[in-house]
Order: sequence, then C-alpha cells, then structure tokens
Amino acid sequence: MNFETILGKVDFLEFLRGKRATFLLSCSVTKTCEIPNISQAGIPGKLYLTPTLDAEFLCTKEVRSLPDIAQTPKGVPTPALITRAIHELKPYSNIEILNLGLDVIPQIDYFKIYNFDINSSESIDKNAKIPAMEIFQKGIEFGQNFETKDDYVIIAETIPAGTTTANATAKALGYKCEGYFSSSFKNSPNDIKNETINKALENLDTNDDIFEILSKVSDNMIIFNAGFILGSRVNDLKVILAGGTQMACVLLVVNSILQSMDGEIDSSNLALCTTKWINKDKDSNLKAILEQLDFPINAYASDFDFSLSNHPALKLYDEGEAKEGVGCGGALCYATINGLSKEVVTKKIESFLG
Amino acid sequence: MNFETILGKVDFLEFLRGKRATFLLSCSVTKTCEIPNISQAGIPGKLYLTPTLDAEFLCTKEVRSLPDIAQTPKGVPTPALITRAIHELKPYSNIEILNLGLDVIPQIDYFKIYNFDINSSESIDKNAKIPAMEIFQKGIEFGQNFETKDDYVIIAETIPAGTTTANATAKALGYKCEGYFSSSFKNSPNDIKNETINKALENLDTNDDIFEILSKVSDNMIIFNAGFILGSRVNDLKVILAGGTQMACVLLVVNSILQSMDGEIDSSNLALCTTKWINKDKDSNLKAILEQLDFPINAYASDFDFSLSNHPALKLYDEGEAKEGVGCGGALCYATINGLSKEVVTKKIESFLG
Repeated sequence: MNFETILGKVDFLEFLRGKRATFLLSCSVTKTCEIPNISQAGIPGKLYLTPTLDAEFLCTKEVRSLPDIAQTPKGVPTPALITRAIHELKPYSNIEILNLGLDVIPQIDYFKIYNFDINSSESIDKNAKIPAMEIFQKGIEFGQNFETKDDYVIIAETIPAGTTTANATAKALGYKCEGYFSSSFKNSPNDIKNETINKALENLDTNDDIFEILSKVSDNMIIFNAGFILGSRVNDLKVILAGGTQMACVLLVVNSILQSMDGEIDSSNLALCTTKWINKDKDSNLKAILEQLDFPINAYASDFDFSLSNHPALKLYDEGEAKEGVGCGGALCYATINGLSKEVVTKKIESFLG
Repeated sequence: MNFETILGKVDFLEFLRGKRATFLLSCSVTKTCEIPNISQAGIPGKLYLTPTLDAEFLCTKEVRSLPDIAQTPKGVPTPALITRAIHELKPYSNIEILNLGLDVIPQIDYFKIYNFDINSSESIDKNAKIPAMEIFQKGIEFGQNFETKDDYVIIAETIPAGTTTANATAKALGYKCEGYFSSSFKNSPNDIKNETINKALENLDTNDDIFEILSKVSDNMIIFNAGFILGSRVNDLKVILAGGTQMACVLLVVNSILQSMDGEIDSSNLALCTTKWINKDKDSNLKAILEQLDFPINAYASDFDFSLSNHPALKLYDEGEAKEGVGCGGALCYATINGLSKEVVTKKIESFLG
C-alpha cells in the first residue's frame, strides 16, 4: 500500500509518517439530499441520517439511530467501513465529531461532539439560506482555538449530496468546473445534478458578495471548514483535508475569500488526501480543481483498491461507485504512513460485512 | 526475528519494547573518503554525497541530489534501505538530521535538519584539522538541551570511511585495536586502511592532549556524539547508539574524556545496537572494543540476515559486505521490539530493489 503525489512533494506526508493524528468528522445535512436520486450516500428518504450513522459507526462500530448500516440502493456500503477498519488496525489517537447541522444527534458517549448551533441547510435549488458569514466565523474561531496533543489533524466530511453543493459552490464562485466534480454514483445522474446546480445559480444576484453566494448555493461543511482552515493557520496546525472534490471546494472557498480581502495563506502545513477511486475517476478531475488555487497545495491519493477482495459489495468501489467519504482517502493515506498493508486493511473491511 | 545480548542484560532493550523512538541521523563527511578504495560506501569519486543521499532516502524514499541511490562498485546497496524499510513498516515517530559537516545539504522539507556550522573535515592522513573542542561542546549543548516527546532516541551515523577514522581514533587514544575494527568491505583493504591510520598517527605529538589528538585523527561524527552522549546524561535521555565499531569508538572517546577529567558517567540509559553482520564478523571484534570501557554498557545485535532473500545484491550482506550503517542495526533491533517479522522486513527491503 502506498500513496501517489497528485500535487506538491512527498515530504509533507512523509514527515507525518508514524506521527499521531486526531480525526475530526464534519457532519452536516443539506436538504439538497432530499431531491430524488441526487445521491446514493444512504437510504432513500433517510439520507439525512447518513452523517449521524457514519459518526456512530466510526466511533463505536454500531449503528444506533437506525437498525442497519447505511447502504445505497445498489448495496454500496458507506466508506465509513474503510475509515473504521483503519481505526481498528491503527487507531487515530482521538475522534471528535463536528455537528455542522445534523438533524439527529449521534448516540455516542465519551466522544466529543462539538455543538456550534448550526442548523441543517435548505436545498440549494430553493436557496440554502445559510447564515454563511456566521458559520464561516465559527469555523475561524474553532480553527484559532483548536488545541491537540497530537501531531496533526485529519478532517473529514459526511454530507449526502455534498458533491452537488460543492459543484454549485465552485461554479458560483467562477471556477472552471465542467467535468471536474465527482459523484457517489458510477453513472453520475448529471441531469438531476446539473438541473439542481442551475436552479441554485438562478438564485444568485449580480451584486452578491462571496458570503451571499455561499449562503444560497453552498453547504455548512464547506463554509465552516474554509473558516477552520484559515483560523488554524495562526497555530500552523498540520491539517489533512480528507476527501475528494468536496474538500477541494473548501480550498476554492478559502481561495476566493483570500482574493476578496487581498489576503494570503501559508498553505505549507495543509494537504488534501483522497482515494484512488477519485484520483483515477474519469468523470471528475480533482487535480484540475486544485490547480485553480492561487496558493500551492500538497495533494495525495492512496493506491488502495479492492483488487484483493472478492466481496461483491466492495467490488462496486472498484467499478466506480461511492469513491470517497467519511475521510476514507485520508484514512487510507494514514494507514500507509503507519505501516498497514493492503491485505490487512482489506480483510478488516471484509470482516464488517460478513 | 530477535536480538542477541553482546554485553549487559536484555532488560534495557526489553523495557523499550513498544515504546516510541526518535531517529537522529548524524551525517558527516571526512575527506578521508577520497583516498581511493578506502570505503565502498557510495559511488567512487562521489562518496561525499553518500550521507546526503542516505538522509534523503531515509526521509522521503527518494534520492534527490543524484539520479540513483548510492551503490557500491560491487552493487551492495546502502543499508539505508533496511532503515527505511523498517520506517515504512513501523515508523519512527520522528526523524531528524544532524548536519555534522555535509558538503551537500539534503533536499528535504518539513524534516528538521540541525545546522551546527560544522565543516566537513580533512583527511586524517594529512591531519584532519577538526576544531575538536568546539565540536565536542556543540555535542554537549545539543545533548543537554535535546527534548523529545518520544521515549527514547536512536542515534545513527552515515560517514563514508568512518571505520578508518574510528580505528585511527581508538588507536591514537591508546586502546587495543588490532583486528577489532570493521570495514564496509568483505575483504577489508587493510593495506590502504592501515597505511592511512599510520600516516594519521604520525601527525601526533607526544604532548597532544585528547582534543588535539581528536583534532588530527578523528571525525566530526565521533567527536560530536561523544559530546551528545555526555550532555544528554543530564536528562537521563534513553539513547541507542545505532552502529558498529564507529559507535563503539564514540564510547571510547567518552571514556577517554572522562578519564582525562576524572569524571564518571551513569551509562544505564545507554545501549549500542548493531547488526548480525558486525556481531559475527571474523575481521572485527565489537565486544572486545566495548570491554575496554571503564563503565558498563548494554550492547545488542539483531539476528536479522538475508537468508530469506534470493536477491543477489542483498546476499552480499550475508557474505560480509557493507555490514552496518545508517543505523540499520539499531533499526533492526527496533523492528524486533516492535513486533516486525523477518519475512515482512525482508520483503519490504526487496520491494525497493525491484
């Protein structure tokens, strides 16, 4: 098991080899997920539960707010399986949950759940009505004040329909997006996604400033984490953004905010880590998104796939379903720099499915 | 995979089982390496690059200051392969580089490279002209002030022709050396080495004090690390000297300095860890060197060899080439007390060679 360098040099991730990580899971609901067939990250009609269940499963290996673990209609198991498997094999020193607008609070004790008084956001096709400036500032403050005994932080996301809101956000901010954004589907439901994004963009006014734009077309996870990234620079916190095009969009928002205020960022202690399924995805282009940033960014992709597994549900990943989420790409990179082999990771994931 | 106790008891190394280690790599150049055929630790004519390349490879698995990784004329690959393989399987928490007189600075980001303003030293056959007292004091200060979050420190060396300067140093200080010192060659070029050592000793005056002696016939690595060992006693830092006869010579220098000032050392938190190739070497005698110390010392040797490998370049180790360097003996002992098997270590090393 190894990782590929998408942008930058190997040095940042190599430096983190053997070091201790705190895993932060940003959990959020956008009602965009209620648009039929827009996401397969969960049970149809109950996608709002997915972040809650992911948090429960990651922390406890139990799904408490629903009898069964979230599966897509095709039976693609949540990538939380991967992130959890690695936690069992080489535990993160600490897992903490960020409630960035959950409808249902995860039923877990002891684990810290940060409450930011953020509500789940409306669907972007009807104007998401997010108090964007307020959420951004909460992210800034959290980043400025965040303290850890660990050497670095892996920050991940679980937000169904998040690739749609990410795509809308990037497009609204004027970035080149055509064919760059990923989907949890193999055959991406582009009609539904594009229709949603176009409807979202129709709500924009020419005079909207960046926070008005984010308010209408984005999601809490993106806005909060853009703040977190900027805020955490005061302490030079080493941060791995664990995710694909959604985490890339967080960086685009950072970029746009910096542009709007003529600001700068020292991005040397930041990296994005994703999966092979995103890195090799023909329907998206993570690298092209990241190359639009005005600052340099280290980006890596795990080379893990399910070629050692015969499990049909897992094979769907290699066929292009699911691809990323719950920080599984970052978790896989973490596994690599902590000496885990593809064999043991594969076996552990399989053990969850029976 | 296991280790053998050369001197002392198993307890020190057993106590470190499962604990976290910082790996310090002392990198230095002595122009003694420019004497033809004196060392096979690198590319002839470019041996001054070996410590630079070893540091780069250990940290990043890339050789940046030269297109190919240092190989000896016979094709013996650098022991950095072993030390790196173990870092990939069970990472050291931290790697830091000590620049004790490099001609070329390693091209690595994030990893700490300590700069002590030390120049590479002259060849000992022409008087090495080392500011020995100054370098020793830099070592003392570094040892006194060194802080780590880890449980112990593995300190290693990479300095081509270092066994020759170690042998000269020990002989100049009056220790019994005949047949005790190792070489990176299987058929040790004793004529060249002895000629060099004898020339070096000719530069000594009867009235030379210990630092004048070291100034003429030693190397920066030995002098600095003697200071480091003494300085780090104020904090009772647990230190593994990872190496063979060169690290034994560091202890001889500590011993001689203590003798010269009627000093004492609590050596209970020190150990030397080396390879089987050194431990079983018929042309050297590590134990006999260490038995000349006035203080007790724990010394261990890994039992790792390449009996599970068919790779011709690696088999050369079992035939007596290379033997030790870049802390590979310490790394192998670390591998043992962290549960790695001979099989996985062998396979990982082989994976680097293709």
